[in-house]
Amino acid sequence: MMKKVVTLGEIMLRLSTPGHQRFVQSDSFDVNYGGGEANVCVSLANYGLDARFVTKVPKHEIGQSAINALRKYGVDTKYIARGGDRLGIYFLESGASQRASKVIYDRAHAAIAEADPSDFNWKEIFEGVDWFHFTGITPALGDKAAAITLEACKAAKEMGVTVSVDLNFRKKLWTPEKANEVMSQLMRYVDVCIGNEEDAEMVFGIKAAHTDITKGEIDHSSYEAVAKELINRFDFKYVASTLRESYSASDNGWSALLYDGEKSYLSKKYDVRIVDRVGGGDSFASGLIYGLITEMPLQNALEFAVAASALKHTIPGDFNLVAKDEVETLMKGDGSGRVQR
Amino acid sequence: MMKKVVTLGEIMLRLSTPGHQRFVQSDSFDVNYGGGEANVCVSLANYGLDARFVTKVPKHEIGQSAINALRKYGVDTKYIARGGDRLGIYFLESGASQRASKVIYDRAHAAIAEADPSDFNWKEIFEGVDWFHFTGITPALGDKAAAITLEACKAAKEMGVTVSVDLNFRKKLWTPEKANEVMSQLMRYVDVCIGNEEDAEMVFGIKAAHTDITKGEIDHSSYEAVAKELINRFDFKYVASTLRESYSASDNGWSALLYDGEKSYLSKKYDVRIVDRVGGGDSFASGLIYGLITEMPLQNALEFAVAASALKHTIPGDFNLVAKDEVETLMKGDGSGRVQR
Amino acid sequence: MMKKVVTLGEIMLRLSTPGHQRFVQSDSFDVNYGGGEANVCVSLANYGLDARFVTKVPKHEIGQSAINALRKYGVDTKYIARGGDRLGIYFLESGASQRASKVIYDRAHAAIAEADPSDFNWKEIFEGVDWFHFTGITPALGDKAAAITLEACKAAKEMGVTVSVDLNFRKKLWTPEKANEVMSQLMRYVDVCIGNEEDAEMVFGIKAAHTDITKGEIDHSSYEAVAKELINRFDFKYVASTLRESYSASDNGWSALLYDGEKSYLSKKYDVRIVDRVGGGDSFASGLIYGLITEMPLQNALEFAVAASALKHTIPGDFNLVAKDEVETLMKGDGSGRVQR
Amino acid sequence: MMKKVVTLGEIMLRLSTPGHQRFVQSDSFDVNYGGGEANVCVSLANYGLDARFVTKVPKHEIGQSAINALRKYGVDTKYIARGGDRLGIYFLESGASQRASKVIYDRAHAAIAEADPSDFNWKEIFEGVDWFHFTGITPALGDKAAAITLEACKAAKEMGVTVSVDLNFRKKLWTPEKANEVMSQLMRYVDVCIGNEEDAEMVFGIKAAHTDITKGEIDHSSYEAVAKELINRFDFKYVASTLRESYSASDNGWSALLYDGEKSYLSKKYDVRIVDRVGGGDSFASGLIYGLITEMPLQNALEFAVAASALKHTIPGDFNLVAKDEVETLMKGDGSGRVQR
Amino acid sequence: MMKKVVTLGEIMLRLSTPGHQRFVQSDSFDVNYGGGEANVCVSLANYGLDARFVTKVPKHEIGQSAINALRKYGVDTKYIARGGDRLGIYFLESGASQRASKVIYDRAHAAIAEADPSDFNWKEIFEGVDWFHFTGITPALGDKAAAITLEACKAAKEMGVTVSVDLNFRKKLWTPEKANEVMSQLMRYVDVCIGNEEDAEMVFGIKAAHTDITKGEIDHSSYEAVAKELINRFDFKYVASTLRESYSASDNGWSALLYDGEKSYLSKKYDVRIVDRVGGGDSFASGLIYGLITEMPLQNALEFAVAASALKHTIPGDFNLVAKDEVETLMKGDGSGRVQR
Amino acid sequence: MMKKVVTLGEIMLRLSTPGHQRFVQSDSFDVNYGGGEANVCVSLANYGLDARFVTKVPKHEIGQSAINALRKYGVDTKYIARGGDRLGIYFLESGASQRASKVIYDRAHAAIAEADPSDFNWKEIFEGVDWFHFTGITPALGDKAAAITLEACKAAKEMGVTVSVDLNFRKKLWTPEKANEVMSQLMRYVDVCIGNEEDAEMVFGIKAAHTDITKGEIDHSSYEAVAKELINRFDFKYVASTLRESYSASDNGWSALLYDGEKSYLSKKYDVRIVDRVGGGDSFASGLIYGLITEMPLQNALEFAVAASALKHTIPGDFNLVAKDEVETLMKGDGSGRVQR
Repeated sequence: MMKKVVTLGEIMLRLSTPGHQRFVQSDSFDVNYGGGEANVCVSLANYGLDARFVTKVPKHEIGQSAINALRKYGVDTKYIARGGDRLGIYFLESGASQRASKVIYDRAHAAIAEADPSDFNWKEIFEGVDWFHFTGITPALGDKAAAITLEACKAAKEMGVTVSVDLNFRKKLWTPEKANEVMSQLMRYVDVCIGNEEDAEMVFGIKAAHTDITKGEIDHSSYEAVAKELINRFDFKYVASTLRESYSASDNGWSALLYDGEKSYLSKKYDVRIVDRVGGGDSFASGLIYGLITEMPLQNALEFAVAASALKHTIPGDFNLVAKDEVETLMKGDGSGRVQR
Repeated sequence: MMKKVVTLGEIMLRLSTPGHQRFVQSDSFDVNYGGGEANVCVSLANYGLDARFVTKVPKHEIGQSAINALRKYGVDTKYIARGGDRLGIYFLESGASQRASKVIYDRAHAAIAEADPSDFNWKEIFEGVDWFHFTGITPALGDKAAAITLEACKAAKEMGVTVSVDLNFRKKLWTPEKANEVMSQLMRYVDVCIGNEEDAEMVFGIKAAHTDITKGEIDHSSYEAVAKELINRFDFKYVASTLRESYSASDNGWSALLYDGEKSYLSKKYDVRIVDRVGGGDSFASGLIYGLITEMPLQNALEFAVAASALKHTIPGDFNLVAKDEVETLMKGDGSGRVQR
Repeated sequence: MMKKVVTLGEIMLRLSTPGHQRFVQSDSFDVNYGGGEANVCVSLANYGLDARFVTKVPKHEIGQSAINALRKYGVDTKYIARGGDRLGIYFLESGASQRASKVIYDRAHAAIAEADPSDFNWKEIFEGVDWFHFTGITPALGDKAAAITLEACKAAKEMGVTVSVDLNFRKKLWTPEKANEVMSQLMRYVDVCIGNEEDAEMVFGIKAAHTDITKGEIDHSSYEAVAKELINRFDFKYVASTLRESYSASDNGWSALLYDGEKSYLSKKYDVRIVDRVGGGDSFASGLIYGLITEMPLQNALEFAVAASALKHTIPGDFNLVAKDEVETLMKGDGSGRVQR
Repeated sequence: MMKKVVTLGEIMLRLSTPGHQRFVQSDSFDVNYGGGEANVCVSLANYGLDARFVTKVPKHEIGQSAINALRKYGVDTKYIARGGDRLGIYFLESGASQRASKVIYDRAHAAIAEADPSDFNWKEIFEGVDWFHFTGITPALGDKAAAITLEACKAAKEMGVTVSVDLNFRKKLWTPEKANEVMSQLMRYVDVCIGNEEDAEMVFGIKAAHTDITKGEIDHSSYEAVAKELINRFDFKYVASTLRESYSASDNGWSALLYDGEKSYLSKKYDVRIVDRVGGGDSFASGLIYGLITEMPLQNALEFAVAASALKHTIPGDFNLVAKDEVETLMKGDGSGRVQR
Repeated sequence: MMKKVVTLGEIMLRLSTPGHQRFVQSDSFDVNYGGGEANVCVSLANYGLDARFVTKVPKHEIGQSAINALRKYGVDTKYIARGGDRLGIYFLESGASQRASKVIYDRAHAAIAEADPSDFNWKEIFEGVDWFHFTGITPALGDKAAAITLEACKAAKEMGVTVSVDLNFRKKLWTPEKANEVMSQLMRYVDVCIGNEEDAEMVFGIKAAHTDITKGEIDHSSYEAVAKELINRFDFKYVASTLRESYSASDNGWSALLYDGEKSYLSKKYDVRIVDRVGGGDSFASGLIYGLITEMPLQNALEFAVAASALKHTIPGDFNLVAKDEVETLMKGDGSGRVQR
Repeated sequence: MMKKVVTLGEIMLRLSTPGHQRFVQSDSFDVNYGGGEANVCVSLANYGLDARFVTKVPKHEIGQSAINALRKYGVDTKYIARGGDRLGIYFLESGASQRASKVIYDRAHAAIAEADPSDFNWKEIFEGVDWFHFTGITPALGDKAAAITLEACKAAKEMGVTVSVDLNFRKKLWTPEKANEVMSQLMRYVDVCIGNEEDAEMVFGIKAAHTDITKGEIDHSSYEAVAKELINRFDFKYVASTLRESYSASDNGWSALLYDGEKSYLSKKYDVRIVDRVGGGDSFASGLIYGLITEMPLQNALEFAVAASALKHTIPGDFNLVAKDEVETLMKGDGSGRVQR
């Protein structure tokens, strides 16, 4: 039977300049909809799972367009609440070479940030569901959103739903102190934790030695140490982290590590030429969830996740619009990019 | 010497669907910047006046882009304060035939709505200035913005600056009661009042008889009665009103009326085929200000204003990008649209 | 409870030149998906019904894109069969003024035209369904498609589902003789028949007097006579016809007539300025189905249908992307096109 | 056998703003190539004639692109000389309603304006040719271009080629005095003269009574008087004139008059909704040439020409991309604009 | 005197997503026309040869557009037959990095696939012609197309025309067995055979040792062995093969090998950053034909071909729009990409 | 106090093909305005200086658009003269990989090339100004432009304004002999000279040993020798040169060298992936001027200039739209391109 997954979070209107135009140059914006948890949900629907997204969006047509963007890819939007004042927005300018991409957030007062716990009936939402995923962004949106997240986690746990989190620390949304307080409480319900070193340090104060992310150097053993400490502290079943090597805004190294409390698995590394790296982490999370929920061997699940997210870097927009067989082809080693006729 | 004009208000990011696409269809938005008072300012700069716009915009690149849009057309942006959280946004979908255009506002919490009176030094801003224009939208943004408007009006009056207002009632921003209270206080400083019948009724409860705007019928005598009542109540020097006949979203009749307390002037009527009607009223206001500040005979000032705004309906975006001689050509009767080689 | 509707037919890839470009000028095509029955289905989903579309599309991404276009607007695509060689295509060039729009069909060998009856389980598809709609295009695609349509009609009748048809004669698909033969058989299962005079004449040889469609003249009494003859022959409950007056490719008169066997109802007439007239008839059909299924009085149902399709003419693409309240606003008389803020 | 036609003149790079954008708004220009004589040539090739265009363009890729634009539509470009400094350019902004379209010429120093008579071997060019067409623009480009035109006219006459001219007075290129001097000399070789009243007055000082082109009034008898005077003076076989009624930049009345020295023929009038009116006159000229060269009865030739140019107004770019059967359909009375499926 | 070349084959409508969009994301398709033999023909016309393309396309405007695309670049289209039902289509999605480009063919039932031998008069077509080129795609379209190809080959041989083939095996069009049977028969008339290792193996079962194309490894000696075997079997004068090293969809190594029966020539290798690799092989074929027909030394002919096709990879669309001098500049060693002012 | 800078030169209309299209493929051109000295001026305004641009442009809207492009970025355009016939144009096609970008100039007869010394009042223009910059392009436009440049240099010197030049030899505008004659005279007023080896050789005959720019090899010591010779000859205070290593049209190495008469400073080298390299040299000049005018240590000034121009290569258009802090971030070593949220 088809596995059922629920993700909770924000879906935003993304307004990006075409090509490599700077904000001040642009006479038009490309319109996409996305956000960490929505991106995961779309990706899982693409892999063939029954994926449900939970959020709140305004009643007007911009809110409706966000829902339509999800429905287009087969996401179940039945439990999206309608109301509130606005849809969060983020502006994106794609960098190149030495020039970094830039994001301007305009997400305060979004409908989901001001939603009420009564907007969501978790018993109903989790009926027959196998997996629940959220990210550190949702509780960071505000106390109400944090409370909703907590309710969801509790309900999931009670109903035997596996819970995963992507830590995703956002410094513009909250302080490390506040993040630590709120997230520590939520971690009690989490089975699978995804987060890079920066997240672990900012949210939980767990610092890896010997890493400077602006230099593109990576020390796998330090990541493993972070993962161990996370499991010690929160009793996760798995901890995973992507390992991004930022050579430039155009080229990145991309691999990941998975730790199951006993052994750490290191993936193949891809050198990716970037078309759009927003949603790269989310595509890893969805790949990993898919690997775990379909019970792939751990190394395979990790390779699936990394291959999936390598592909995401070549796709415009937040969503990782790749099919399962495309991921598998890459995962098995054909990254030659020969034309598929 | 070149006349100096100041306008105060909000400049917003305008996101419109291309062509006649509906919101739910659109994969890109055309980017413009505009807003009632900014539109008036750009138009006056186009006519060759020294035009200064006063507002507050965020420090990020979207705020900067709004400033650049004004500078491009020669507006003096020196007194625009920087700071606050966001730039107000409005989404626009252009209708056609029986389908109305639609505007979705997302302007709450804009920098200018939350600006502080200390952001603006009116003595400096009005130094050597001849005319000050604002609209009913600015005080409607919130109590702070209303206080700033009041300060500006007082300073203008003290410094001998002529003051004009466009009533522009916006039902999503405030109630008629609140509008009446705030606007009545401001009207004491106003010399020239622009506003259609709907504005007069909603803001000041002055109701014209025999008009149903959805039917496209117009009764000039009732407009004159409204104008008289406005002058009785607030001692304006001039009252002007545009007379829009909405045949459909594609075709409108367009004329205007000016009353000087003694006599009313009625303009020629244009049947306009609409390219973009947003900013139509603002282009009338700027045309009228230009006519009055350059001391045209009243009938001419009115004809200039109406011809200017007829042309605005043919120009994409909020701004009325026409030169003085183009308005004069139309005003003198050549609406044949023959190619100018 | 939400009413359930099923439509059966072809969804095609529509490739249209931008603006008013001719085919030979165009370096890009706008991509839409549509087709008579799909258009009806999307429109009904927009009105809030539970609308299911049944067809067959290839397994590749172009087929998937057609499905996504339907899902985006909330259509239930569960019973769309996958397989076959190709998706039908039609090329569209939008005319203007005296230049007619042009359609080039490239629909032979489409998956649905070569589908097998075993691709569809009608018992399951019609479970709990209230209404079934098809058009004369589907059986014209070929003998297999005609057989499938017949099976569907029979199953619908057996299961108490109301059946409607839009005659939609297509001279490039079949001859009048063949159409008469196939359609006459299908009409036995039909409750509501939609078709203009041309359809009635071409398919059933029922000729109205005194009408020349290229002249834009309309004689309502002759339409009523056609409707009567259709009811006499096939015992329909209702017969409806749109009355298009083609002044030019840019402007049309648009109204409709409904006959219930006793009385004929004539709608208000709209003069529409055309943005995209493809799908105009389908939007009438869906409006009428909505009016009848929600049990509006007949005159209201007709007015709803005509207002809905007047709006369609202003929307790019095949689909009529209007909400119920937008139709109602127009139906109640506000066609002024004033900006909705 | 297929008739052979030669036209001589300038082909320019046309840079137009998209939609109805003003020059100062535009971040991109649509690229087309055109010019009076090139437009006539392309149109004749579209009708199936063997059409040759003679000009000179630079050796660089912009010059090549002009040639490619002609080749694309089947024009014979073998006798286009290569060399010179630049291709003439014109900038175009499309007006709407009361706002006129604007053309900015940047054509000085174009290769054809500075070409040498030795660039063209007229004996070879006119080998087997039936018709030669030029316009008043070519000799206006400069003395060298005038000399080339004269050589061409003489050679045509000697070789028995029918010669037609479109007067096309351009006040930015020369004075009425200069035009009179040069054109009078050329008229000796001309059989068919096309020119509106304004041309006749500006070039030859032949003034029609009672006409004010900015008012859209037309007095056919005065046109006939102009035609008579032209024939008296230059012994033309036919004189033709388009009759444009400029209601606005969006809507024009369009008809024409042909005079054969004895009788004047008046065409049907079309009310055209304008997509692009540049090249309207040229499409009339090519329609008339086609009618005359294929020996249609005079009224038919005129109707063909007017129907052809009515269609041109609906096509973006300078070229009239319509086929013979499309013109005939309209000419026979179907201007209903119904979709051609 | 200018050399004359004829190519026979299919020209298709190519619909590609803009940028790196996936099929499911795209609201518009870029329109190009192309196909192996058409691409070769356009390239040869660009080099200044008299190049004639032979195919069959439908009478409608999409067929005409294909012809126009060829005429634009100077190809002689006189012998293109008109008729049949449709133009073949292929959909293209451009990959990047690890994501491969994807082609969806919709070419069945194309006019050329169903053409009749009587559509082409080879005696007339080959009059005065020096070279005939075809590819393995044409006979694979069906038995009729194979028969036409055979007729063409025979006529060419009889008339002393040099014949070249590009093997171009397409697994979606036929089986290796069928290919072997048909192609072996055609090879008797061929002088120059182009084909990579994969083609040789799939069509003739000639397998090179030690090569795995998905790994990007190349072993030149194995290619030479394949070439030898081809010459042994079919008595070709020359065998050439491109050597593509697919590092990723964004970067390829590109070189080639030519064998004259005695000696093998290996070209310089280019590392190309890919803009559009479709038509890469065709641009090699046309470069080689140009080198051989103009009697360059063999090494030069090969270098010309490889440089030409390296440039093709940087040009959007199927056609290799480069001039002879551009190829020569690169061939002589300036690949620095410095701006040419 | 804010430093004031003046630059004198030409601003052109730049028409570039979208993406990597070739000229012959393009149906639209992207519109930008730029030119060596205008680019420097915009960049300095972006860094916060008071930057004034001096030129002459026609009175029409294309001339106005050039002014608007400058005003948009805060450049003072008060002293731009209006008049003359045309704005210079350049056409740009962006290369990729082995295919070089191509520029076609159409700049003869531009307003600034035919301006009169009386168009500019240098005493007024230089009032309170700190720095004057020009390039070798301006005097190359013609004798009048050379005379104007000389006047400007003299006035600058008299008024104590620092003078910098970018040699920028353009072989299409003048010969080395003429350049030597004119430039040598101007160099007497120059304090800071920027120019690469090629410029030094072409203009002054100063040849560096051991460098072949098409090979991408660079020999720093030879550049230093050139700089020394320049200082010996013209007594400059500083000589600077960019060091471009052209690997391909897509990838360049980019560094620079500064010599102060005693010591040479060599910058960090950036490997840049190119989005748009036009204006790369100008962005270096403006960075260096900014570094020197704000009295950075020489190494820092050089690093600022090189980092600034590395960023320019990633920005479409001529202008270097980067802020001071963005340059500083890169200069301090973060070229990781991580998303700035």
